[in-house]
Parts: sequence; C-alpha cells; structure tokens
Amino acid sequence: MAYFDHAATTPMLPGAIEAMTRALSTPGNASSLHTSGRRARRAVEEAREDIADALGARPSEVIFTSGGTESDNLAVKGVYWSRRTDRRRRVVASSVEHHAVLDAVQWLVDHEGAEVTWLEPDGLGRVRPEVLADALGDDVALVTAMWANNEVGTVNPVRELAALCAGAGVPFHTDAVQAVGAVPVDFAASGASALTLSGHKVGGPYGVGVLLLGRDVPTTPVLHGGGQERDVRSGTLDVPAIVGLAAAVRHAVEHREETAARLSALRDELVAEVRRVVPDVAVNGDPAHRLPGNAHLTFPGCEGDSLLMLLDAKGVECSTGSACTAGVAQPSHVLLAMGVDPVAARGSLRFSLGHTSTAAEVRELVDVIGPVVDRARTAGIAGLKRLAGRTRGHRTAEV
Amino acid sequence: MAYFDHAATTPMLPGAIEAMTRALSTPGNASSLHTSGRRARRAVEEAREDIADALGARPSEVIFTSGGTESDNLAVKGVYWSRRTDRRRRVVASSVEHHAVLDAVQWLVDHEGAEVTWLEPDGLGRVRPEVLADALGDDVALVTAMWANNEVGTVNPVRELAALCAGAGVPFHTDAVQAVGAVPVDFAASGASALTLSGHKVGGPYGVGVLLLGRDVPTTPVLHGGGQERDVRSGTLDVPAIVGLAAAVRHAVEHREETAARLSALRDELVAEVRRVVPDVAVNGDPAHRLPGNAHLTFPGCEGDSLLMLLDAKGVECSTGSACTAGVAQPSHVLLAMGVDPVAARGSLRFSLGHTSTAAEVRELVDVIGPVVDRARTAGIAGLKRLAGRTRGHRTAEV
Repeated sequence: MAYFDHAATTPMLPGAIEAMTRALSTPGNASSLHTSGRRARRAVEEAREDIADALGARPSEVIFTSGGTESDNLAVKGVYWSRRTDRRRRVVASSVEHHAVLDAVQWLVDHEGAEVTWLEPDGLGRVRPEVLADALGDDVALVTAMWANNEVGTVNPVRELAALCAGAGVPFHTDAVQAVGAVPVDFAASGASALTLSGHKVGGPYGVGVLLLGRDVPTTPVLHGGGQERDVRSGTLDVPAIVGLAAAVRHAVEHREETAARLSALRDELVAEVRRVVPDVAVNGDPAHRLPGNAHLTFPGCEGDSLLMLLDAKGVECSTGSACTAGVAQPSHVLLAMGVDPVAARGSLRFSLGHTSTAAEVRELVDVIGPVVDRARTAGIAGLKRLAGRTRGHRTAEV
Repeated sequence: MAYFDHAATTPMLPGAIEAMTRALSTPGNASSLHTSGRRARRAVEEAREDIADALGARPSEVIFTSGGTESDNLAVKGVYWSRRTDRRRRVVASSVEHHAVLDAVQWLVDHEGAEVTWLEPDGLGRVRPEVLADALGDDVALVTAMWANNEVGTVNPVRELAALCAGAGVPFHTDAVQAVGAVPVDFAASGASALTLSGHKVGGPYGVGVLLLGRDVPTTPVLHGGGQERDVRSGTLDVPAIVGLAAAVRHAVEHREETAARLSALRDELVAEVRRVVPDVAVNGDPAHRLPGNAHLTFPGCEGDSLLMLLDAKGVECSTGSACTAGVAQPSHVLLAMGVDPVAARGSLRFSLGHTSTAAEVRELVDVIGPVVDRARTAGIAGLKRLAGRTRGHRTAEV
C-alpha cells in the first residue's frame, strides 16, 4: 500500500504513541489539587514548555485546544469579537484558507455583523504582500492568512504579511497546520499574533491542537467554562494527547531539515516519474515556495474522483485536494482562486508525503498511474457530460 | 493511595485503553475517500451506533465533540443562536449548572443579547418542576438543566422537566456528564432535545464527548469548518478517542446496575464510618435522588482546602467540589444556591467513587479523617480570620 495523504492525516510517530499510551493509564485531572492532579499538571506544563521551545514561543503563549479547527475558530471569532467596535468590523482573509477559517469568517459576516475583504492569491497560490497592503485600514479587526496551503502546498511570505499587519496595528493570525514540521516556523520571529497548529498533521494524536496566542492579543473565548487555558479556552486538559503532541512536535521540529530534504527529493522524483508516464500532467502551486511533501497535479481530461478511486483500487491512496462529495465533484476553491480552469481543476490530485513515505511507494504509484489515467480519461468524457447537467452537491469534510 | 475524585476524572477502563491504543496505530482520516479513510469511517460509524444503542438514541443523533465543555457550549449557544428572534431571547438555566453551561449562558447575556432566568434549586439541590413551569414562556429560546449535579450528586427529575419544555415547545438540554453510567439514561425516553456526555467521566478518554441532538433541533455551529458532524460540528474526527469512548460507554452502561449497587453500598459505608469518627459531619444533597458514587460532606469549623491537602498528604485524594484557587477558597455556587451558609460551605469535601473504588480505600480514609479534621479545625480558625480580610480570588478550573 502506498499512502500519499499525509496532509489529511499522518500516522503517529512511534515516540508520540509511546508517550501517549503511557499517559492513558495515568489518571489525574490537571485542574485537581491533589497529588494525581499535580502530576497531570506537571506533564501538561512540561509539554507546553517543549512546544513553546520548538516553535519560538513563550509557554504562556501556548493555548491547548481540540485541534486545528478549534484553533482557527478561536483566533478568527475570538479576536473579531474582542476587537469589534461600530467602526471596526472588517475581517481580511485570504480566499484560499481552509474551511475552518473560511466558514468561520463567513459566519461572522452572516451572523455577527462583520464585513470581509477576501485576498485573492496569485496564480501560484501565494498571498502577495501588496494585495494585503491594499486591504488594510483602520476598520480591520483582524487579518488571517495561512502559512502554507493545504491543497497546493504554496508557502506564503508570512513575515512580510505579519509586518504589514503590525505596521497597521492589526492582529495577524496564520493557520500553520501544514507548515509546522515541514518548513521553519518560529512564532516570535514570524511576527504573527496567533498561529494554529494541529496534532494529527505533525505525527501527534487527533483531537488536540494549539493556538499560539500573544499575551497582548485580546481574544474572546469560543468555549466557555472552567477557564483552564488563560480563561481563553475551557475544557478539561487532554493530558495524554497533550503529552503525545509535545513528543511529536519536538521530533518533527528537531528532524525537520533532514525530513524536508528527503521528502522534497522523493516528491521531485514522484513528479518527474509521473510526468515521464503522463507527459501532459500539470504541476500546480509555487515551484519554489512549496511544502517539501506536496505534489499537486492536474491530469487533463480526467475527473479527480475517478483517478482517486482507480488508484485506491491499486493500493495507492491520495486525495483530490478539493471539497467533494460522493459522486459529485466540486472544483477546488483554491484552484479556482488561482485562476485554474474549472474543468481542469476537477482533474487534480494531491499527493502528500510524510515521515513514513518511501521510494518504494513512489514506484508503486508510477507503476499504475499510466493505465489509471487512460481509464479515467475514457470515463472522464462521459462523467464530465453527466456533471454538466448538475448544479451543485453537498460538499463533505475537507481534510 | 485512595482516589475519591472520580467525578473530576475516572481512570480509563481497560477495554477502552485497549480499543484506543489499537486505533492509535491505524492511520486514516475518516473524511478521506480511499481505503484507509473508509476503514476509519467504519470505525467511527460503529462507535456511533454503539453509543446510540447504549443511550436510547438514534445514530444520527450522536454528534461527536471534544468533550463536555464543547457539547454544553454547542447546545446552549447553538440552540440560542438558531432560535433567537427579537421576541425570543430568554435562556432558562438552573443556577447550579457546571461552569461550561453557566458561563456560556452568561456570555450570551453579556454579548449576544440574551436574557436569563436562573432556576434556583431546593435545599437538596434539585431543580423543581414547578419552578421551571413558572419560568417558561413564549420568549424562551432554550432551557438547560443538568441530569445530575457534579458537586452534590443530586439527580434532577429530568423527564418531568423535559415534559414541561415539550409542552411549551421549547428545546430542553441536559448536561448528563455525571449521570451516564451512574443512573439510567435513555435519551428518547427522557424527552430531552439535547444531552451532553463526556468521555473521561465514563471511563473513556479525555478530549472526546458527545452531544446527543434531536434531528429537529435547530443548532448553529460553534466550530465552523469541514462540516464533519451533520454540519453542526466541524473538526477532524478523533477516531481513536471515539473508538475508546464507545468501548467505555458500552461497558459503563452494560455494568451500570451492578456498579451502582456496589458503589452506593461503599459510599454509604464511607458516610457512616466518617460520621462515626466525626459525629458533627453534615451530608449535603438529596439522600434519595443521588448519584451512587457521590458523598458530599461538610466538616464544621474546617476549610475545605486544608482538609484536601491534609488528606492528600496521607494519600487520600478528593475534591472540595467547589471552585477554588490556590490558597483562597470561594464557597461553592451550588451550596450557596442550596442555601448553605457560606462559612459552612467552605468546609465541604466531595468524595466521588468509581469503577476502581474499593473497601480498602474507604478504610484508608476512615483511618485518617479524625486527626485530619482535628488539625484542620485548629488551622481553620486562623485561616477563616485571614480569609475574612480578602475579598476575592481568581477561581481555577472547576472539574
């Protein structure tokens, strides 16, 4: 089996599994005052220090959450609510964000009196500083732009974006779910006010994430209750997951350079070999500023879902990298924003590599991609005709 | 060591640890379309069916969340937002709820234009149906009242409360975090519209919970994004935790009767034996309608924190059952609402028993409680004088 869907979820690192498994049988609520509680609290605070240290943050800037979606919602809604005034209700967001940001912003517009300025990316999927500069103003409550795109792998000029926001006195949030462990991420050096991190994308567990949040960034809670995390986030601390997350972040950041070198070489080989078999394949995204493990390919005349299922039948797992539903493909909002033709956008696949990826897996893909594309092209013509008759479908979860 | 803090968190059941540990090394995002993704999805849907079956719900009524706090926030804010109109903005909530409900309601009042009617409990901590009946009206967006109180263990007449709400056409939410596995909980039979369940209180993992939510209950998401759970809750599904939760719920519900019988006998022995040693101890809460594992005791002339730390030094772990902070005790809002004198309220401890509790642990407590109370009484006089000079402290997390 060849697994090329590490951007959706990557297997847990053995060290993270070990740390978490040990913690599963150690009881104690980290808010309890007795010995078991204090032991749990120590484990949490050590994890907090490790994560802060690995990401250039202070321990007090680490807010544990249930994952990337919650961190994004907390940053977007929380900062908006705290900074909203009659004359300051605009959110500036890139149009190629993950739905956890997009839909949170849209909800603020629909229900909470926000206005929005969407930042359109360039043809490579980058949010350009001059586009942000044009959008800034006194009425902006916050800016949000991802560190690296989850579909096409394009890495944004985060420092420049953050510097513009700092100059305008506007908090800048960045969703770094795909960036941590893949490219250098230093919170203090980035100049960001808030940064989202997800456990299961860095080799840690599901169900846990972090929002790095500057001490001076006013943030209204999204989840109220016991006030566990700086009174910004409530909910019993998930000690085993937090311990597992810290182990994963430590490992991913410490081994980042060698992993990135290995994965980008493998990824380049994947692209070159697929192109050898399918010469008209197109590579999307930024060739230079790109996640090491991401290859985003368009196969003209094919439907992504067909390719995906045909590859899956051959033991090769990947993703369409787009919102989709059973049977009815929707072109990716990211590709459309980049100016890709809607029909071409439908024929795209995301291959994302990670810590378990091997050259043997790349060969598995290369061995089957030719016949799979041929077959998808035959099916594609009928399929596209059928699709043209439909207007829209429900999208399922984007990952 | 004697652990009497199962209401804060109870150790994971061996079967839940086993199921979860196995899942930790099985990759696959449940929203992915390939084989690994579909396998993960199957595990989630089987867990959903198991939980629904154990709790008298339909699988489509099971919304997986990150825990009790998120479920409470989703029910309270989500139903309020969906049902709010110019003339319908009142929330009716019992005043002895967990802070995840209390603070969510208060935030709606402070920021979202809600009004609130707090239902005061009787002296035993029960929310009386006639008190709810008086509070209902056309302007009520939702009613929330817990199934069983987390501090004093009082069990509410949930069916009667739900029936009153149904009669008035108002959705009724109940926080059943302490009830599931302890008393019979049947969602359909209860008549509730929404019900909160937490993983780590039933022998499952931290970081996962459920909101049982009727299909016809309009609910605005609190976390936006991929739309994974009926478009009501977004965030990658935490497959290992969900699998562990299902194993725990199944076990807790299947063995509920025998566990309840064993724990209530142990608890009665604990109360009787403590009273033998400390004759003036008072027992709080409802003697009849009570969680089997809960003993809530007031030791006149003592400070709860002192008792807690002195017991902890002797290897006995319990809780003050009240919001508190390092050194500065705040009397519990639950006891105050029940009409307990504030000074007496400070001298209270919650002993909560669970699946690992033994008669030997009860003996450990009984062996040390006499001298501990004597010492706390001596310290208490000085301590209470000291406290009288302070106005307030920050509360830490309530558990």
